[in-house]
Amino acid sequence: MKSDIGVIGLAVMGQNLMLNMNDHQIKVVVHNRTTSKIDDFLAGPAQGTQITGAFTLKALTDRLERPRRIMLMVRAGEVVDGFIESLLPLLEPGDILIDGGNANYVDTNRRVAALQQHGIHYIGAGVSGGEEGARHGPSIMPGGAIEAWPQVKPIFQAIAATVDGVPCCDWVGTDGAGHFVKMVHNGIEYGDMQLIAEAYHFMKAGLGMSHAQMQATFAAWQESELDSYLIEITTDILGFTDDDGAPLLDKILDAAGQKGTGKWTGINALELGIPLTLITGAVFARCLSALKPEREAAEVLFGHKVEPVTGDQAQWLEALRQALLASKVISYAQGFMLMRQASEEYGWNLNYGNVAMMWRGGCIIRSAFLGNICDAFRKDDALPFLGCDTYFKTLLLRCLPAWRQVAACSLASGIPMPCTTSALAFLDGYTTARLPANLLQAQRDYFGAHRYERTDRARGEFFHTNWTGSGGDTASSTYDV
Amino acid sequence: MKSDIGVIGLAVMGQNLMLNMNDHQIKVVVHNRTTSKIDDFLAGPAQGTQITGAFTLKALTDRLERPRRIMLMVRAGEVVDGFIESLLPLLEPGDILIDGGNANYVDTNRRVAALQQHGIHYIGAGVSGGEEGARHGPSIMPGGAIEAWPQVKPIFQAIAATVDGVPCCDWVGTDGAGHFVKMVHNGIEYGDMQLIAEAYHFMKAGLGMSHAQMQATFAAWQESELDSYLIEITTDILGFTDDDGAPLLDKILDAAGQKGTGKWTGINALELGIPLTLITGAVFARCLSALKPEREAAEVLFGHKVEPVTGDQAQWLEALRQALLASKVISYAQGFMLMRQASEEYGWNLNYGNVAMMWRGGCIIRSAFLGNICDAFRKDDALPFLGCDTYFKTLLLRCLPAWRQVAACSLASGIPMPCTTSALAFLDGYTTARLPANLLQAQRDYFGAHRYERTDRARGEFFHTNWTGSGGDTASSTYDV
Repeated sequence: MKSDIGVIGLAVMGQNLMLNMNDHQIKVVVHNRTTSKIDDFLAGPAQGTQITGAFTLKALTDRLERPRRIMLMVRAGEVVDGFIESLLPLLEPGDILIDGGNANYVDTNRRVAALQQHGIHYIGAGVSGGEEGARHGPSIMPGGAIEAWPQVKPIFQAIAATVDGVPCCDWVGTDGAGHFVKMVHNGIEYGDMQLIAEAYHFMKAGLGMSHAQMQATFAAWQESELDSYLIEITTDILGFTDDDGAPLLDKILDAAGQKGTGKWTGINALELGIPLTLITGAVFARCLSALKPEREAAEVLFGHKVEPVTGDQAQWLEALRQALLASKVISYAQGFMLMRQASEEYGWNLNYGNVAMMWRGGCIIRSAFLGNICDAFRKDDALPFLGCDTYFKTLLLRCLPAWRQVAACSLASGIPMPCTTSALAFLDGYTTARLPANLLQAQRDYFGAHRYERTDRARGEFFHTNWTGSGGDTASSTYDV
Repeated sequence: MKSDIGVIGLAVMGQNLMLNMNDHQIKVVVHNRTTSKIDDFLAGPAQGTQITGAFTLKALTDRLERPRRIMLMVRAGEVVDGFIESLLPLLEPGDILIDGGNANYVDTNRRVAALQQHGIHYIGAGVSGGEEGARHGPSIMPGGAIEAWPQVKPIFQAIAATVDGVPCCDWVGTDGAGHFVKMVHNGIEYGDMQLIAEAYHFMKAGLGMSHAQMQATFAAWQESELDSYLIEITTDILGFTDDDGAPLLDKILDAAGQKGTGKWTGINALELGIPLTLITGAVFARCLSALKPEREAAEVLFGHKVEPVTGDQAQWLEALRQALLASKVISYAQGFMLMRQASEEYGWNLNYGNVAMMWRGGCIIRSAFLGNICDAFRKDDALPFLGCDTYFKTLLLRCLPAWRQVAACSLASGIPMPCTTSALAFLDGYTTARLPANLLQAQRDYFGAHRYERTDRARGEFFHTNWTGSGGDTASSTYDV
């Protein structure tokens, strides 16, 4: 009896995806480089399922229905290329290879094109939801060789989370579009987590709240527009005690790691020229957290102390909630700006409403909020900035006074809230028709003859001023000989 | 009679560097792809000099003393590779090729290695100073094939700016180290310019000052620790009137362009994991400025208005000066953190005091301030953060109250000052021993089994908690099969 799909890789995501497939009567054959782990898995978590093992790639490919469907759940990077190389001689035209890891979309672009030469359909599928999501319904973002989508769709849509009966999985676009959207998802995840951490820091260091009080606050926020998986688990975490009865959170080292996708999102934004300040700020906040010994020395050297936040605590907490909510809107707005630019640049024709729907459930950033984003793009797919949608504009304007108060207070008190504050500076910049960049242009023309445009002339007409009287009239444009 | 050096490229930087060399009795032969420009140059700016022209690359190489020294002053990227390809058959082992453009250091790494195979010494030299600097003394940052340095040093140190008799040019390091340091220089230039623009915006939109008042303020600041070329030209620009007698600055479009080096600096920081928030924020501010039509629409949609800043103007201006000064320290501190990480990562053994000395004069970011930075690194080359040096620590602590006031005011009033505010949030973060990243680590372990370290255990020991009771004990580390 042949299997429906082969899965390679037995880390937590791979294991749970297979158990999820098995729940949906999909027959899975598993391979892992360290073959002893296959035995462990079959005798352990997979006991009593229809999942079978293959100790070699040849055995794996022999056991699959044609066209074969093989999903890699291995570490992104060279490991993926290694498996592709080993599998290629065992595959036939029409077979389908799926990368379910966190590949860089640039690698996926390359692999889709390379495998097309061999008639193999390559799909790069972002999978989000952590171990729980993988087990019970993740969000899946597939892209690449669209010819293979009909063969993959029934499996992916069966195992994906659903919201109101709609699966959190749909076709994203050609090339590495699926992994690109997953990358932005992860970037947004970095942003959400950092904003929550900043709110926690304000409560703890500014308001002097106990873990129980903070837990109650996040639990209450979960009943508001902030309703989301990350707020939910933050509530759990705040209530979790160590063996000695003290909050475990207090004993966890404040040095955050990263897996690369947040970093890639920031790099992509710089390459495409999109001001993705919030996610990039969240990545940098993790980098700063990693400098633990430097920070410990600097606190002593500078005698840094947080000025306690005075005033009515309930009022501050509501202001903080609004600041978090508004900052979150900015983060998502910037993420969608980046996707729009990428879609135009790479010809992907992304459907932003679909993207929001895919993130609505299953994944780490799942939230009620994404339903509103979906509505906004369903109403106007050409929305240049999420904040211009009526719902989000109203929300931002409503939160603005409290947000200003919290941001100003954090800077006055010495509580570092880099993303909450920079999100506000971004909105102020985005809603300012006249920014001081005219001075930058004047400076660039002054020292480098870079030329400028004028407000009283058409765009695309460039002027150079001989500012000093001694500078020449040779413009820098002649640089390109 | 043979020439000392050949220069290719007749844009403003190339022209001025040649005239500068000629002033120092260096015999230059020039080539340009569009040969008519050679005639124009020889009959124009180069009239009466010893500069001669070569209409072909063959003629250029024939006219040079051996080993040949040829400097490319052409557009970075493919144009450089094109000239290298064309020149290679005309060169002999021992000849020296110098790229004086704004190459990406990664390209220079590659070119140094590739030309070494042919026995050609390749030097990537960052040149800063704009047209004036190139003409009368730039800052030059050479790196690459150190064997060629003795042949290049007399020319470069002759034409470079000097401060207290020391030339603003010294050997930087192997590979693309020279272009790397130039890239960071340009990144810092982006930061300085953005901070000045933010101060100008605060004066104009917040304090409602006239151009004459702002000009007088910058002129006064030039007499303080802010003494620098960029403050000097800002003063000039504020006083420059258009033909109709109105300030020209008001008619310049507020949409800033970029040449790529700022962007590369941000990308490099993300790759190396250094929290370079200020320069990256300055790049993003330019990206945001470029969205002019979107901003015009959003200002109307949101009814954005700046709340006028009230209170004593002189006090606000002094606070603003201190905020600008302190933010500038953060920008340079981050830039040096990035150089330290790169130096370790790429084995360049950079001398930070030398770098500061090279920037002390000649270049766009030249300032009195860089003398203090030089002192700091001469005292302690292992300084992890510029702010830990006594001079800069004292300066930061002195400016802190005013800086907090300005930053908080900008967020309360709706004046976007993204870099001034994020610099403060950075310092608050850097001087906080306990950041909220423990919550990030708890979240990552909760949803992704990413494991965490503990404050009560040694670094490098990782723990996973089964937070929900239903999650498994399989950690994400097994992801790598």
